[in-house]
Amino acid sequence: MPANDNPDIINPFLDASNRVHIEDGSYIRNEVDLANRNSGLLLELLSCDITPIGAHYLLNHFDVPILDSSTHTLAFEGAFEAPYKITLDEIKSLPKITMPVTLECSGNGRAGVQPRSRSMPWLYEAVGTSEWTGTPLKPLLEQAGPLQDAMEICFTGEDRGFDKAIEHNFARSLTLKHLENLEALLVYEMNGQPLLPQHGAPLRLIVPGWYGMASVKWLSNITALTEAFDGYQQVGTYHYRNDHDDPGIPVEDIRVKSLMKPPGIPDWQTRQRLVEQGTVPLMGRAWSGGGRNITKVEVGIDDQWQEATLDSNQHDYAWVRWQHEWQAKPGRYTLRCRATDSEGNVQPLTPPWDTSGFGNNKCQEIIVFVR
Amino acid sequence: MPANDNPDIINPFLDASNRVHIEDGSYIRNEVDLANRNSGLLLELLSCDITPIGAHYLLNHFDVPILDSSTHTLAFEGAFEAPYKITLDEIKSLPKITMPVTLECSGNGRAGVQPRSRSMPWLYEAVGTSEWTGTPLKPLLEQAGPLQDAMEICFTGEDRGFDKAIEHNFARSLTLKHLENLEALLVYEMNGQPLLPQHGAPLRLIVPGWYGMASVKWLSNITALTEAFDGYQQVGTYHYRNDHDDPGIPVEDIRVKSLMKPPGIPDWQTRQRLVEQGTVPLMGRAWSGGGRNITKVEVGIDDQWQEATLDSNQHDYAWVRWQHEWQAKPGRYTLRCRATDSEGNVQPLTPPWDTSGFGNNKCQEIIVFVR
Repeated sequence: MPANDNPDIINPFLDASNRVHIEDGSYIRNEVDLANRNSGLLLELLSCDITPIGAHYLLNHFDVPILDSSTHTLAFEGAFEAPYKITLDEIKSLPKITMPVTLECSGNGRAGVQPRSRSMPWLYEAVGTSEWTGTPLKPLLEQAGPLQDAMEICFTGEDRGFDKAIEHNFARSLTLKHLENLEALLVYEMNGQPLLPQHGAPLRLIVPGWYGMASVKWLSNITALTEAFDGYQQVGTYHYRNDHDDPGIPVEDIRVKSLMKPPGIPDWQTRQRLVEQGTVPLMGRAWSGGGRNITKVEVGIDDQWQEATLDSNQHDYAWVRWQHEWQAKPGRYTLRCRATDSEGNVQPLTPPWDTSGFGNNKCQEIIVFVR
Repeated sequence: MPANDNPDIINPFLDASNRVHIEDGSYIRNEVDLANRNSGLLLELLSCDITPIGAHYLLNHFDVPILDSSTHTLAFEGAFEAPYKITLDEIKSLPKITMPVTLECSGNGRAGVQPRSRSMPWLYEAVGTSEWTGTPLKPLLEQAGPLQDAMEICFTGEDRGFDKAIEHNFARSLTLKHLENLEALLVYEMNGQPLLPQHGAPLRLIVPGWYGMASVKWLSNITALTEAFDGYQQVGTYHYRNDHDDPGIPVEDIRVKSLMKPPGIPDWQTRQRLVEQGTVPLMGRAWSGGGRNITKVEVGIDDQWQEATLDSNQHDYAWVRWQHEWQAKPGRYTLRCRATDSEGNVQPLTPPWDTSGFGNNKCQEIIVFVR
């Protein structure tokens, strides 16, 4: 049968949820494809306050669009008193601030969820901290003036594709109430350099304290809505659901979390570690969302927990460094770290699974052999 | 039993080849861990002559070392007439050249090898082209003066770890005869910027025309040897072997290959594509190693092959752009591209498997639906 006679081809991704053979407990080619595209932080670079260019995690749903910064404009449209367009050059001439912000993918830690959730199989590495430079969003929104009945502001990027048979540009909304409390930025530089294509060049949103899906890349449209946004990325995913019929709770701010720079040297395949006995300096980073600070980090050597030392300078939206000295004797150990934030949230020892593996802030485990 | 009483812990990675449960046909956690660490080119960025910073593929065996560029030195040692050390600043003061070079990982395309070869599961994306800036290696080698009985030059990086129970710094050698014909560079800039930590800062080797394993990162030692180098990365891997007892043939220069920028827009999970009917511009890149040029690229629409147009300006060691227009009618298609080089090597339609999935230059396949 010629392909053209097959009615299935008309809307090719309609049956995407059934097309791919899944085996529980195994990783399928699609996931490896996603893992090869979407790169994670190299955990040894937790030694850097600011993640080097190119080592910050990437999660791009669709293809990276290459946009022309010299002609790029941002349109404020929809339920505003005074819709307008502004060019990138005009945005760059506005008051500029630079802010260290830790971004984390809400799917970080998804890889172990059972049954398999077919998506990017992050283990621990979907996190990074950059110095983001841009202009605050609020004055630009005020200039447009949301109408009395405006409820939400929707942010739309230039990246387009399919998910679950729905064709769309990546878009996410925030309520006006959310926006009151968020220090959202329109960003055009990362670590003092123009944004890279894969990080949203020439203009993106950064929503400090929220998981990464809120920080829309390749931003071209800001739309005031008089009802709740029902786009796929808003309602079809990014919810904590107990089962597939559960309407769920939206994924929003980042749960408390910490990571350790793996000590010693690695085995190529297993990534297990060899450490020399004696005093072993351990270090890592801890963070929480919603402007919450970190109040405590504990280090677990097998099941013995000790409090680590936190740096005193803590930014509201960037990770903080912790350090601890371990007197290591020969043996095999599982190292963990566990952060507590200013609202008393503590990382769990077992994953808080929802159906899609979102917001897994279970303590990291590193297997170390001491000789 | 306390861990310390277990004799196995003394050399923890001795049994690494047996420790990890493998299921043929499935991807295991270690491979996903490697895929999350080792990032590939986003294929849509094949549109760029020079791969943007941070989008070039990365394959790092061990942890990225953070080295101090202000104190970094390179030692010429071993079987030289006049061994010496040179600082990075001194290297930067030497004649400087900038060269576009395409690097590809020799494991690119490994993912499908059967039975599973436990390593980084690349599909197509372990490739990139950068403008590398540095100084030619040859004058520096001549200054040291290999002794009459010197056979090989070994390049050692600062990255250290285990593979197959062998602890070592990453190191590779080239014979003096190889070096006569190679335009090897000592590199400290990539795309006009200082090398990034994850790409070998502050100093690395670039061996144009060879697979990436030859381009040693974090380079600190250049050693002249009077016999063949027997380090793990030289003899324990990077060989084409028919079975595990086969001594094999060393992996050296890059096999002819091409890639296509996937047209249209993607489905998030399957990465299959939707394309609008009509004239569809197709484009991509083709390259071969050993200084061989590309003489032809063909585009296959299902099994119908047509010759693409090659750009006329071809660098010896960087990929060349090809373009083709496709008159697309509704249907489901498999798109391929196939390059031929100046020695008549042609990409195969089936993978040229060895036991480790090296040098797989099989034609890329992209599934596209046209509406």
